Amino acid sequence: MKTITVHAARDLRLEDHPEPECGPGEVQLRMEAGGICGSDLHYYNHGGFGTVRLREPMILGHEVAGRVTALGEGVEGLALGQLVAVSPSRPCNRCRFCQNGQHNHCLHMRFYGSAMPFPHIQGAFRESLVADATQCVPADGLSVSEAAMAEPLSVVLHAARQAGALMGKRVLVTGCGPIGLLAVAVAREAGAVEVVATDISNFTLGKAREMGGDTVVNAAETPDGLSGFTSDKGHFDVLFECSGVAVALADAIPAMRPGGTIVQLGLGGDMTLPVQTITAKELSLKGSFRFHQEFRLAVEMMQRKRLDVSPLVTHVMPMTEADAAFRLASDRGQAIKVQLDFS
Amino acid sequence: MKTITVHAARDLRLEDHPEPECGPGEVQLRMEAGGICGSDLHYYNHGGFGTVRLREPMILGHEVAGRVTALGEGVEGLALGQLVAVSPSRPCNRCRFCQNGQHNHCLHMRFYGSAMPFPHIQGAFRESLVADATQCVPADGLSVSEAAMAEPLSVVLHAARQAGALMGKRVLVTGCGPIGLLAVAVAREAGAVEVVATDISNFTLGKAREMGGDTVVNAAETPDGLSGFTSDKGHFDVLFECSGVAVALADAIPAMRPGGTIVQLGLGGDMTLPVQTITAKELSLKGSFRFHQEFRLAVEMMQRKRLDVSPLVTHVMPMTEADAAFRLASDRGQAIKVQLDFS
Amino acid sequence: MKTITVHAARDLRLEDHPEPECGPGEVQLRMEAGGICGSDLHYYNHGGFGTVRLREPMILGHEVAGRVTALGEGVEGLALGQLVAVSPSRPCNRCRFCQNGQHNHCLHMRFYGSAMPFPHIQGAFRESLVADATQCVPADGLSVSEAAMAEPLSVVLHAARQAGALMGKRVLVTGCGPIGLLAVAVAREAGAVEVVATDISNFTLGKAREMGGDTVVNAAETPDGLSGFTSDKGHFDVLFECSGVAVALADAIPAMRPGGTIVQLGLGGDMTLPVQTITAKELSLKGSFRFHQEFRLAVEMMQRKRLDVSPLVTHVMPMTEADAAFRLASDRGQAIKVQLDFS
Amino acid sequence: MKTITVHAARDLRLEDHPEPECGPGEVQLRMEAGGICGSDLHYYNHGGFGTVRLREPMILGHEVAGRVTALGEGVEGLALGQLVAVSPSRPCNRCRFCQNGQHNHCLHMRFYGSAMPFPHIQGAFRESLVADATQCVPADGLSVSEAAMAEPLSVVLHAARQAGALMGKRVLVTGCGPIGLLAVAVAREAGAVEVVATDISNFTLGKAREMGGDTVVNAAETPDGLSGFTSDKGHFDVLFECSGVAVALADAIPAMRPGGTIVQLGLGGDMTLPVQTITAKELSLKGSFRFHQEFRLAVEMMQRKRLDVSPLVTHVMPMTEADAAFRLASDRGQAIKVQLDFS
Repeated sequence: MKTITVHAARDLRLEDHPEPECGPGEVQLRMEAGGICGSDLHYYNHGGFGTVRLREPMILGHEVAGRVTALGEGVEGLALGQLVAVSPSRPCNRCRFCQNGQHNHCLHMRFYGSAMPFPHIQGAFRESLVADATQCVPADGLSVSEAAMAEPLSVVLHAARQAGALMGKRVLVTGCGPIGLLAVAVAREAGAVEVVATDISNFTLGKAREMGGDTVVNAAETPDGLSGFTSDKGHFDVLFECSGVAVALADAIPAMRPGGTIVQLGLGGDMTLPVQTITAKELSLKGSFRFHQEFRLAVEMMQRKRLDVSPLVTHVMPMTEADAAFRLASDRGQAIKVQLDFS
Repeated sequence: MKTITVHAARDLRLEDHPEPECGPGEVQLRMEAGGICGSDLHYYNHGGFGTVRLREPMILGHEVAGRVTALGEGVEGLALGQLVAVSPSRPCNRCRFCQNGQHNHCLHMRFYGSAMPFPHIQGAFRESLVADATQCVPADGLSVSEAAMAEPLSVVLHAARQAGALMGKRVLVTGCGPIGLLAVAVAREAGAVEVVATDISNFTLGKAREMGGDTVVNAAETPDGLSGFTSDKGHFDVLFECSGVAVALADAIPAMRPGGTIVQLGLGGDMTLPVQTITAKELSLKGSFRFHQEFRLAVEMMQRKRLDVSPLVTHVMPMTEADAAFRLASDRGQAIKVQLDFS
Repeated sequence: MKTITVHAARDLRLEDHPEPECGPGEVQLRMEAGGICGSDLHYYNHGGFGTVRLREPMILGHEVAGRVTALGEGVEGLALGQLVAVSPSRPCNRCRFCQNGQHNHCLHMRFYGSAMPFPHIQGAFRESLVADATQCVPADGLSVSEAAMAEPLSVVLHAARQAGALMGKRVLVTGCGPIGLLAVAVAREAGAVEVVATDISNFTLGKAREMGGDTVVNAAETPDGLSGFTSDKGHFDVLFECSGVAVALADAIPAMRPGGTIVQLGLGGDMTLPVQTITAKELSLKGSFRFHQEFRLAVEMMQRKRLDVSPLVTHVMPMTEADAAFRLASDRGQAIKVQLDFS
Repeated sequence: MKTITVHAARDLRLEDHPEPECGPGEVQLRMEAGGICGSDLHYYNHGGFGTVRLREPMILGHEVAGRVTALGEGVEGLALGQLVAVSPSRPCNRCRFCQNGQHNHCLHMRFYGSAMPFPHIQGAFRESLVADATQCVPADGLSVSEAAMAEPLSVVLHAARQAGALMGKRVLVTGCGPIGLLAVAVAREAGAVEVVATDISNFTLGKAREMGGDTVVNAAETPDGLSGFTSDKGHFDVLFECSGVAVALADAIPAMRPGGTIVQLGLGGDMTLPVQTITAKELSLKGSFRFHQEFRLAVEMMQRKRLDVSPLVTHVMPMTEADAAFRLASDRGQAIKVQLDFS
């Protein structure tokens, strides 16, 4: 079976690995689709991010869907041939964070395609995968592409939970990559009375309108940015910061209402922030990281037509063209979500 | 100017009162529409409810909209002829509850059309009204009927806040009068992944589907009621109890998931409840009463087309036919919301 | 090894069972102390409660402490001879509630001394016990009696979490059995500005003062009960209802402030409640059931001298006098917590 | 009547002003004591802070207590000669923030001794003051010094509310000025299971122990600072950041547990923060600013002996020695809270 393996920055290989077999409680899958995520791009373009660096070859990928090819002993509720979305999150269920319901902070997390521990956790861009049955969520009624969007949607549903109820709130989204665009869609679905999105690309801002943004602002073309939203102590109740860029966050703070909530999803480095304004306005800046229980919900939200993520999948390319796909996914002026086809 | 005044049960009169004039900070309005609410019906049909009884004639009505006919000194932001939704809630802003942000529990509340204190608080079913400017919310873009729906919608938006975030939740609504039907619509708008509604009238259940209910259950025709939702400790995360009927609440409790929230809107009397189940499942039963800041939001949610309440206004009748209108509004098999036309 | 086994109401036997041996990840303990809880008393006095009935002999007990006598393979952090408090809660860690952080609602819970499933879950009133290492919390610095109080204290710490922050709140506790008295102590420790306790026994009310109650009310001797606390819409922010008696709850409701929280710990049957008052005052009635992560905290709170539970252990009796101990524990005029000594 | 008026940095004058008289709903007070706060020191030492600058002479002071000398028409619940703590917070009760229960963010706030609007809001370091009756909280049973501590205690009680329930939490306090020391005391009173305090002065750290700190760390003398608290993803659930110093906050972040809460009270300037760690650990950084309803509670917490703030008042000096008092209050190695005596 073939895999998409990164050896170093810009060194991506289509490799052969032995076919895995499934044991009790496990499921063997023929993979169908896999979306390229920002962290995949960091490994591909830079060999890692921050202090996380590649130290050995690693199969990439954690936004995947496949079809059941074999069922291990004791597995129930899944059928041969069934399409499933596969959760890449594998906590230990035992450590104090798992016991506390914070499974996404598991001390022994094995998240697909992650160089955080060593040996690295191998990913799911591959023709065949063996997963725990508990990772496999039936995706009946979804397209293969939609099923592979369950993971990024889970990230955003988790972030939305950090923000509390969004109904009737004024929501700002900074940074309209796939996560930001899903945040626009989720904010609308969750009843926000107004959704404003900012980015520096008109291509992505067009998508932001398509996903439900009431107003879009091109921060590169608008010298005064969000200044129209700063009177009377600010305008927005909630900000989903999806850019990871310090200036985007710092510029948005004056536009937040006292008591507002900023959910930080974008992963950048150190940022210089007007903490005195956060203090005086009693803002809450909350990190949001991955997800846990939201994965099943993401699948069901799509199945029940609450959210249509299909406009975000701008390209699907065969795994044999992985290198071109990764280069395309790195170009935010052309692509939103690029998926690989493993079939 | 004419008013709709109740003197006793089944004694409703079209009376003449002097035209009110507006002072500083006040607005004079020509009333356009007024919806008949359950409490209006209690005064009309029974002369009160519970320990609250009519002790003098009272003008009814608190779901109203009108047009500005005069502006008192110092009033800004309103124009002659402008359509406004009028909030019937008038807290003192001074007592400890107002100081605590619980304005709806104001110790000196003067809510239109309420017999709770004596002398009673006269209501707003009348040709002319003088209100504080702060009660008047511009309703540009709305129909007169929609503007008069801002009040019941506020009640439901407030109730939704008691429930916390609804996105991705499974929501049950028991009792599909106007409030229950708005709860169905609000739950959908707020991103509920599943909405189930129960009632004993197929007419209202049809409306429940129209407002976004995924499934409806006629409790009178289904002997086992919600038993399909009770396996694995229950199904629903949130219940909006809008019937005020003990059996509706008691029957729904086994269908609630551990940790679920019941928001009680329906006003009934004493109820016998399985408190041991509430305890063992760690349910939360939360009362919801009126609203405060939600009134402005209700208007904006309609203006931004987040919610379409128009299917609920089944009848509009002239104020000269008030008695017939009240009788019609009392018949849940024929009418949802009956509004009076004062123009 | 000897056990305390109930066969039917009032049929309690000191029985011989084979000594259990410990496997990997397990710990063998010589039991030291076990407190008699209300549910033990229900099995002893009535053969069960509600629909839960004894269907086979069952070893009682779930408030226990012991000393380590053997360590299974792979167990770390525990030493031979060490005193440990033993959590009776054994969730599966796999079901959807465990995955959701609601371990106390585990679909496959095996809680010591519980007749809820069949075969029953055998309890921990015994000379020797094998437990999972994860159940055993080192209790260095505590007395044997204190260590055996970790379980009821966990119940109350969990209930306190349902109530949110207690600092500065006015707290009422109805029912001053062991749980109610711990609620008084926890409310004080958590910074309540005022704690009032009610019961019908002056013996327990004296203990309530000792545990930190500012005011105590004997509901049997005071005809107007809590009427001194009902003016201006009520007085209390939080109620811990620990009696399970309908009249206690119903009488307290008029004394609750709008927006107040009632945490229901007492397990009774159906109760007739003024739901209209819960609604109009926007009270929250929240069930609280058992605990999960609070067990470790309970031990540490005692170790750090944040709480002194020792005044509650009024009697310690040898396991050979179990029958007398159960009768004494049933008499709320004489005893608070009766513990058995297994050494 | 004499006042303490600042004209510019280091230009503090004892001035004569006409005696104020009280109108309806107002109270005339003979001032007794006033604590010097950090913002007073900023005006005194630097003529302002950040963009807030003195533009005209301003009477300083907002932590004050006095005795009633006259009662305006309609004032109830206060008596001549009674000691009262005076809340310096005067919101409009009308703007959208007041209507939303966020009175401390009032658009028209008039907070004593504040140069934020122009003309400045004159302060309360003066022999005679006329205040609204609603600002005056009876302080029977408190010393004059304690009554004048109600204001800083309110700030900390408000901050504690931002943190949610503290019972059983591990709390870190960075910066042990008066606010940090009150945070130590409030964390203990609210049931924190562990309280650790850091500062760079052994004098203040000694006070931190006296106020209930379990462990103190002198960050200047300990090269590895909080590194003992960083294993297994961190140690603290809650941080009260009271220093306003970027390095204190940045150093504390690695010691926070995933999901932990940082309440920022210290007012500094821009800070460079590891936002990627805030994101990955899902920390919440919440500003806390002033207070509103907490003022009455602060008085009662002292009256009921829940908190003893008296160790913090290290110096009381006559108003004639104001300049020396301000210099002393600026020296954190010698003084905690310096109060002026106006009698």
